[in-house]
Amino acid sequence: MITLASDFGSPYPAAMKGVLLHRTDAKLVDVAHDFPRQDVRASAFWLREVLPYFPPATHLVVVDPGVGTERNALVLRAGDHTLVGPDNGVLLPAARRLADDEADGLEAYAVDERDVDPVAPTTAEGSSERRPPKSNTFHGRDVFAPVAAAVHDADELSSLAYLAPSAVDIDLELPTPTLDGARAIGEVLVVDGFGNVITNVSGDFLAGCDLIAANGDVVPVGETFADVPIGDRLATVGSHGFVELDVNQGRGDEAFGLETGDRIALEPTERVGE
Amino acid sequence: MITLASDFGSPYPAAMKGVLLHRTDAKLVDVAHDFPRQDVRASAFWLREVLPYFPPATHLVVVDPGVGTERNALVLRAGDHTLVGPDNGVLLPAARRLADDEADGLEAYAVDERDVDPVAPTTAEGSSERRPPKSNTFHGRDVFAPVAAAVHDADELSSLAYLAPSAVDIDLELPTPTLDGARAIGEVLVVDGFGNVITNVSGDFLAGCDLIAANGDVVPVGETFADVPIGDRLATVGSHGFVELDVNQGRGDEAFGLETGDRIALEPTERVGE
Amino acid sequence: MITLASDFGSPYPAAMKGVLLHRTDAKLVDVAHDFPRQDVRASAFWLREVLPYFPPATHLVVVDPGVGTERNALVLRAGDHTLVGPDNGVLLPAARRLADDEADGLEAYAVDERDVDPVAPTTAEGSSERRPPKSNTFHGRDVFAPVAAAVHDADELSSLAYLAPSAVDIDLELPTPTLDGARAIGEVLVVDGFGNVITNVSGDFLAGCDLIAANGDVVPVGETFADVPIGDRLATVGSHGFVELDVNQGRGDEAFGLETGDRIALEPTERVGE
Repeated sequence: MITLASDFGSPYPAAMKGVLLHRTDAKLVDVAHDFPRQDVRASAFWLREVLPYFPPATHLVVVDPGVGTERNALVLRAGDHTLVGPDNGVLLPAARRLADDEADGLEAYAVDERDVDPVAPTTAEGSSERRPPKSNTFHGRDVFAPVAAAVHDADELSSLAYLAPSAVDIDLELPTPTLDGARAIGEVLVVDGFGNVITNVSGDFLAGCDLIAANGDVVPVGETFADVPIGDRLATVGSHGFVELDVNQGRGDEAFGLETGDRIALEPTERVGE
Repeated sequence: MITLASDFGSPYPAAMKGVLLHRTDAKLVDVAHDFPRQDVRASAFWLREVLPYFPPATHLVVVDPGVGTERNALVLRAGDHTLVGPDNGVLLPAARRLADDEADGLEAYAVDERDVDPVAPTTAEGSSERRPPKSNTFHGRDVFAPVAAAVHDADELSSLAYLAPSAVDIDLELPTPTLDGARAIGEVLVVDGFGNVITNVSGDFLAGCDLIAANGDVVPVGETFADVPIGDRLATVGSHGFVELDVNQGRGDEAFGLETGDRIALEPTERVGE
Repeated sequence: MITLASDFGSPYPAAMKGVLLHRTDAKLVDVAHDFPRQDVRASAFWLREVLPYFPPATHLVVVDPGVGTERNALVLRAGDHTLVGPDNGVLLPAARRLADDEADGLEAYAVDERDVDPVAPTTAEGSSERRPPKSNTFHGRDVFAPVAAAVHDADELSSLAYLAPSAVDIDLELPTPTLDGARAIGEVLVVDGFGNVITNVSGDFLAGCDLIAANGDVVPVGETFADVPIGDRLATVGSHGFVELDVNQGRGDEAFGLETGDRIALEPTERVGE
């Protein structure tokens, strides 16, 4: 099984699928192709959240603002999973979670793109068309997809000549909140399509808490959206285990005035202050 | 075969797919994940329209504004098809059509979510992460997908311990039009992505009719869009068998000033009145 | 393998998938369902770009502003590939590229839609529903999908009774640029989702050129986006082999003020003039 994730929109992912299907019979499963454009950190969050629900698979990820530069491509072995993508950190939060051991469970390989054999498109004989065998702007198709297919079908990663043990050079941690007395100072990681505001504060923070001040706005803590009337605000522990700021059947981002990257201070409170 | 339909957008459906692929080898087919947000009736319309074109399958549907409340989850056996989703009525119009007999062909089972075994995400040993085994806000992943996988692979539904015969408590009928003399008083069920205005008035109503007044606007009745010049309005029998108000290569909703839920009066007419 | 491409958005493609899965076990792969609405030429460009990366397959394409008119449906055999869709030219640029020989490699068959056997939707006994067996407005479901399934499973196209040798009546060439001295006068073929402005001028035109005037704006020629600072404009050879006008991690269409169909004059230049 090969999963695909990118910020490519449409129809570029189809070219990657064509390349994969040229090289392998693996089942293909889309994770998403509408990750926020060139937003490595938000993409890393979603991968970390979604990939651990898959059975062992090869995960092809292309969110690559630096396409065409000298960056390495990466192949990460993390537990029973393998991740393939650019060496910009986007793979790391998911890979650390998928690894058997968070601190020390990853095997990393660097790929020299010059050793990758791209799939040449079919072109009629007699055509005047000439295009370079490997583009500088679509490595998803010309580098990462061929590598993912090869990795998927290989018995051992080390049998692939173009893989060499490597350290992961670029790191990307999801930001961790700080505690200031009873307050947690965190950050909005992403806003999902429903408008739910997903913070980086662990859901544990809400334990035993009925009301919470979010940047000063006091809202109830609920177990689920329906614990408040339709249209009302609340804080919950989201399905990913982090504190979320929501509106029952509405948009939390608009009601709280928050967007990705915003600072968020959370403080348990007993009553609304004057 | 398991089909998936939801109002989740992206990337939440990928987590459901991961769960399904953990539990079953069934082929997965997306119906849609962009149903109008938390709009049970529009989703019910589209399911009723699309699912009958599928061969026998398990259909996983999650449009669930009441997620986390005490509502039951439902499994419906309808002819050779099985539908799994929330007990808010969204499954019923499709299920009634798929059943061998409209009035009496459904078997309904209630699911006690506490008996459902969710798929736990992979998490590295040594991780400090703790999340509840079952979220309160993402039953698509933690309740409905595990049930759909189990139902798909079960020889008999009754072999699944957590299914209990049930009455369907909540009903959801698509609204039926009324007749007022020669006029049909109906409703806009949905507007599709092309801007076609789909009403609940049966296409039979247009039989033998060349011109029709739609809320007073007289337009030709055509067999297909191209029966009128590009940019002109018309009424047709849509591919779902209902009266549609359209513009040839344009948007009917804008030209007629109509949206989902609007009242629509249709009256055959011979000529444009003064 | 059957690929699907359309301008249908959602959920209409699911009805086509249901029909295909009724008739064949072929693997289904989505190319795109968000082609620009009823834009035959832009769709033809994307198909020409993407389909040649697929292994031999049947390609079902429905971008069909003339649905329901007397137009023929087409089946094109192009090399190891087969294309099925409306006879409005949308298939031709891709088919010519997939054919063994550009000038003379296509076999074309016309399909009489009256000979096509659509898939009837499941409808409960006792239902009052009556719909025509074949709609006038959704040939993707009622004509093209059944033909694609039959073609995919047929040993020889000529064994299908409803196929008759046919000439392709309607042609659709992507526009070719003209040369005016050192200037290439071309056209914007499409703008992709990143905002990259894709012209019809061959990438060869940029060979040996460091700066280029695009409608008078002088910008550097780069091998990849990262050859200029983030936010700066450049011209590159895109992954499809044409000249593209881009912004590194930004939108070229906005920065150059260009959209699909606009005229674009490109002229190599040594320095920025006064």
